[in-house]
Amino acid sequence: MKLSKKTLDQRLNQLYDVIIVGGGVGGLSAAIYLQRYRLSCLVIEKGKGRSFWMQDVTNFVGFPPHTPGRELLQRGQDHMLGLDADYLRGFVEDVQDDGETFAVKVKIGKNDSSYPVFRSKYLIAASGIIDNLPQLENMQNVFDYAGFNLHVCLICDGYEMADKRCGLFVNTESAINTAFVLNWFTPYITVFTQGLCEVGAEMRQKLQDHGYPLVETPIRQFLGHDHEMTGVELVDGSQVELQTGLVSMGSQYHNGYLQGLDLEWKGGSLPTDSMCRTSHPRVFALGDLKEGINQVSIAAADGTLAATAIWREIRRGSPPRRWEENLIGAEVS
Amino acid sequence: MKLSKKTLDQRLNQLYDVIIVGGGVGGLSAAIYLQRYRLSCLVIEKGKGRSFWMQDVTNFVGFPPHTPGRELLQRGQDHMLGLDADYLRGFVEDVQDDGETFAVKVKIGKNDSSYPVFRSKYLIAASGIIDNLPQLENMQNVFDYAGFNLHVCLICDGYEMADKRCGLFVNTESAINTAFVLNWFTPYITVFTQGLCEVGAEMRQKLQDHGYPLVETPIRQFLGHDHEMTGVELVDGSQVELQTGLVSMGSQYHNGYLQGLDLEWKGGSLPTDSMCRTSHPRVFALGDLKEGINQVSIAAADGTLAATAIWREIRRGSPPRRWEENLIGAEVS
Repeated sequence: MKLSKKTLDQRLNQLYDVIIVGGGVGGLSAAIYLQRYRLSCLVIEKGKGRSFWMQDVTNFVGFPPHTPGRELLQRGQDHMLGLDADYLRGFVEDVQDDGETFAVKVKIGKNDSSYPVFRSKYLIAASGIIDNLPQLENMQNVFDYAGFNLHVCLICDGYEMADKRCGLFVNTESAINTAFVLNWFTPYITVFTQGLCEVGAEMRQKLQDHGYPLVETPIRQFLGHDHEMTGVELVDGSQVELQTGLVSMGSQYHNGYLQGLDLEWKGGSLPTDSMCRTSHPRVFALGDLKEGINQVSIAAADGTLAATAIWREIRRGSPPRRWEENLIGAEVS
Repeated sequence: MKLSKKTLDQRLNQLYDVIIVGGGVGGLSAAIYLQRYRLSCLVIEKGKGRSFWMQDVTNFVGFPPHTPGRELLQRGQDHMLGLDADYLRGFVEDVQDDGETFAVKVKIGKNDSSYPVFRSKYLIAASGIIDNLPQLENMQNVFDYAGFNLHVCLICDGYEMADKRCGLFVNTESAINTAFVLNWFTPYITVFTQGLCEVGAEMRQKLQDHGYPLVETPIRQFLGHDHEMTGVELVDGSQVELQTGLVSMGSQYHNGYLQGLDLEWKGGSLPTDSMCRTSHPRVFALGDLKEGINQVSIAAADGTLAATAIWREIRRGSPPRRWEENLIGAEVS
């Protein structure tokens, strides 16, 4: 059921088999599998993750190619609630490993917050990433286009950018190298640093050799209408015409709550085995939070894998169910 | 486009980037990604694979829980055709490795067959498995229930069998061990061997200890109506009442066409690296054909991985696209 401030008290004494941090595609897939394995789980979702922002999921097999991310999430949520999983809107602040169980502290509500603690045997970290966006004075101007034709994922949306005039928005010199992958899709690339980083002579030469202009002047605003970005206006008043854009400014991992656990890290992501198990035997990591490519289809499969590994372990540690009626019969005969 | 006997001539001189053997969920996912990576591919589908038989795909996140497998396949097909992938109904008989390219020989049409040969740089083996079913005189009687409440996959459908009277249909003694996993979902298990295998004293004792009856008499027919199996009638005329069933009689890998290639095997399946690459650098294997659990979500992710690995390799081997107009400008200034 969907837990609220009013109903969550019922669950504070329950030991869940699994608590899943993150209600994106990976977390929802795990919840669907876990419930179908007859295990109990709670999904805790802070809201507005990466798939929520996707206007079109264009590459997930079986879906019409313009399915909004939030429709996908809503369907997954309905699916897991139909299987009696629990779902809570809240922000996981901290997880404590008590040896056999985890204590998961959640902040609920922005104002007048409460901080309930839930318990589980296993933890699935499916809290993903959020992409850094250009920081303009009027952020609404960025949100108007981000996820529409201002993209954040080359693998997802390179196809949409094909042969278009594309702005590449970066904040480090090394991110400029994205241009030399993006050019598989389009060579009409203008690189915008907004002056956020130094660009060395070698990189300048490389850009010039490819014919890609470099613009270092900060951006005043994106231009466009109806969620279609058509260019940028710089702070000096000049304008650059564009047909699409790619933001390559890194991303934030939502992993703060994991910092108290004994886990092996690789940057902000978690190395896992083939079943998505981290270095901690009772912690699994899915989707964007683990190493590998960040795709909806991968997250969905990760949910399957983690849930299956947990089920196998719990099942193997449980006594077998016998058909008692037949046993009585057998003893009599 | 959908190729037919009449139109396929247009493609015989084309070198595809990738030929995908199998138009199940894995193959379709790969095709969607490849076309979006601006690569060319041909999907060859023989028809009636495992997902085609699934009446309800109940565990794929984002789908209503009673989506028929064939609807999923149709949607994936529409999606890839919309991206200009090629699709052909036919049976791949043989693949020859000519060093740089593969020659893929296809049998088209049951009668008056033709045997065109298509060429590609890479091969994706996504031809899956098909489950062995009980062989009765009237196979239509089996097909009436298989994929409905006579299941073939414990992971997919254990939940549907929960606490029901379940027939477990096996053809080897070792397959009887499925009972001791199935009992996580239901303990009301009757094992049917149809006399196809010997059952040793130890296994008989184990079944008795669990209270699971063993029936070795061959089956005459499944009983039921409207695709709901309600029991079996044995050849001696006696009947056993059931509410559901699980067939655990192994499966056939569709891998005959791969036998001429230099590949490492593990039974009928192919070991792969984390990007689904087999021991042959230009052959990838997806879904049920590779090692691991056989699930729709896994196949979809495998398609993503294989397509991405192939794209990376082709891209890295290709000259960069330069913005020529700007280069001329740069030279003048």
